[in-house]
Amino acid sequence: MAKATLPILTNRADTLKYEDGIVQVLDRRKLPEVVTFVPCRTYEEVAQAIVDMVIQGGPPLAYAAGYGLTLAARQFKGLAPAAYKAALLEAHRRLRSTRPTAGDIHPLMDTGLALAYRAIEAGRDAEADLRAYVDGQIQAGDRAARLSGKYASELLVDGDRILTHCFAGAALNYMLYFAVEADKQIELICTETRPYLQGARLTAAQAREIGVPVTLVTDNMPGYLFYRGMITKYVTAADSITLDGHISNKIGTFQYAVVAHQFGVPFIVLGYDGPDPERPDAASIPIEERNPEEVFYARGVRTAVEGIKGYYPAFDITPPQYVSVIATERGLFSPWNIKQYFAAPDPGAGGAGGQPPR
Amino acid sequence: MAKATLPILTNRADTLKYEDGIVQVLDRRKLPEVVTFVPCRTYEEVAQAIVDMVIQGGPPLAYAAGYGLTLAARQFKGLAPAAYKAALLEAHRRLRSTRPTAGDIHPLMDTGLALAYRAIEAGRDAEADLRAYVDGQIQAGDRAARLSGKYASELLVDGDRILTHCFAGAALNYMLYFAVEADKQIELICTETRPYLQGARLTAAQAREIGVPVTLVTDNMPGYLFYRGMITKYVTAADSITLDGHISNKIGTFQYAVVAHQFGVPFIVLGYDGPDPERPDAASIPIEERNPEEVFYARGVRTAVEGIKGYYPAFDITPPQYVSVIATERGLFSPWNIKQYFAAPDPGAGGAGGQPPR
Repeated sequence: MAKATLPILTNRADTLKYEDGIVQVLDRRKLPEVVTFVPCRTYEEVAQAIVDMVIQGGPPLAYAAGYGLTLAARQFKGLAPAAYKAALLEAHRRLRSTRPTAGDIHPLMDTGLALAYRAIEAGRDAEADLRAYVDGQIQAGDRAARLSGKYASELLVDGDRILTHCFAGAALNYMLYFAVEADKQIELICTETRPYLQGARLTAAQAREIGVPVTLVTDNMPGYLFYRGMITKYVTAADSITLDGHISNKIGTFQYAVVAHQFGVPFIVLGYDGPDPERPDAASIPIEERNPEEVFYARGVRTAVEGIKGYYPAFDITPPQYVSVIATERGLFSPWNIKQYFAAPDPGAGGAGGQPPR
Repeated sequence: MAKATLPILTNRADTLKYEDGIVQVLDRRKLPEVVTFVPCRTYEEVAQAIVDMVIQGGPPLAYAAGYGLTLAARQFKGLAPAAYKAALLEAHRRLRSTRPTAGDIHPLMDTGLALAYRAIEAGRDAEADLRAYVDGQIQAGDRAARLSGKYASELLVDGDRILTHCFAGAALNYMLYFAVEADKQIELICTETRPYLQGARLTAAQAREIGVPVTLVTDNMPGYLFYRGMITKYVTAADSITLDGHISNKIGTFQYAVVAHQFGVPFIVLGYDGPDPERPDAASIPIEERNPEEVFYARGVRTAVEGIKGYYPAFDITPPQYVSVIATERGLFSPWNIKQYFAAPDPGAGGAGGQPPR
């Protein structure tokens, strides 16, 4: 059995810490060269760190927002109950609206606020209750990432050349890790993922550390690689999965899915903890449009001429007809019956799912 | 009638000059901020300028190579006929192999070499004959660009939002120019075109100068724009057109063509002077693979982590089923009958084509 390493963006507790009065957020923008944390001392600083892409990816930014609300519960602890609740409601509004597309942040924030209200009403420590809740969410999220990656890895075979786009998070790390542990000979081809270059930096560095050969291409190249038969699987995460099987993910995911479909290459979505219960269809996914100025730069250097407009939709939507399979912590699902996820055994509930595989 | 401007990359004589003993090549890498010429005093310097992307685009780099051979004819003028021919043959080999994908360079260099041999055999000045030949090719190329752009512009309608990729050259400028002159309300959306950023720099600057509103997106975004119905036409050039209707163009052209096809958006190819007579099919197009290191940088700044591989195919191939129409100097052709181009009246021959439109 081959030996693989699990790199830093695998266990969320290594990248996000709640210390008394400070949320420490690993600065993903500086990875892999520099491992440094941005200390946030107010919920507003957490919100700003999320907006500024210090932390990225649906689950991680949801956990950061959860700790932000925990910090708010600490900041406003001295207030009378009504004012305390009002302050938390404002913190909830601010943190919840930092990044609109990813689905995880909304239920986590809503449940967190309800817990805090109940703690205040019962005279309990809202900060402690929130912290315990977010800690539990992170643990559950780590399990979802591991199982989602495990089930996806079982679809991989010797000789696979896997295209991935952006950074698909801990589940991608686990998928590659389990494949290497199982001695599968695979290669990863990653897009650089403009304008933030998550592929050229995060994905490439994580795969290299796991021990999977990585080849980098620019975002205009995957189509030709499909044409040449150089891609055998296409794998990404999803910032949101709707109940009717649409997935939203980093801008570009859709166009590669269309070409994969043309060439009969399966598109495997790392679905973590399944679809978003409150999102029935594509129309229910708000697509975040970021500052157009960001497309004019690469790592701080101006790449475009002056005097033009830019457009920066940060995510796109891929309809179910382009998705082959969604790998979740409860197993593999077709996008066409992803709603069955909710009826499947929950491996974390001690039910039929039993112990997570390793 | 609206007033439009024709910017610098329209007339090739503004960008490439043969002065006695020096080929002056406009440095496109520094446009639009700086207009400066790279002086080449030997054919090897011309070859290196082509390899280094000082000049880009199928026809322009063919003309530069032609002047490079002219320069060689000057360099080696003192040699005896056999040695002179051998030196020109070596210059021809070097210049002809600088960029393998674009189709124009090969016939131009082969005809140029034959002309030079005939001049040497007849005791005429090979440099003068070559210069006259290349001058004529540039004039003919300018006419092809103008007519190709003119015919493409006639396909545009009010409200068109045109996606383009890389820089489609003088024909694109003419297409936009004629559309503006005809008071058509159009917009251009251009991809930045990594790694060299021709779209973010050349295309964006040229369109801005012509007076067409330009929006820049990164190379992962067009798919979503098609999905949202934001693109009504897709227009690129072609570095090579085969006799069976395949087109080769800047890497990325193909993946956008596939998505355009999915959404029923027409793909208009600016075909200049038509297909390459010596290329019957896709297999006859060599795809240039450039130094993989180039995908790790943007404008000289490292964008990728260390310790990984890169891959840089510079062009891709789009089969005829994804091409709607090819606009050439002899009119519009389906890719399925592009061979008819050779039977169509030649507007430059004083025949049925008559005067070029304005």
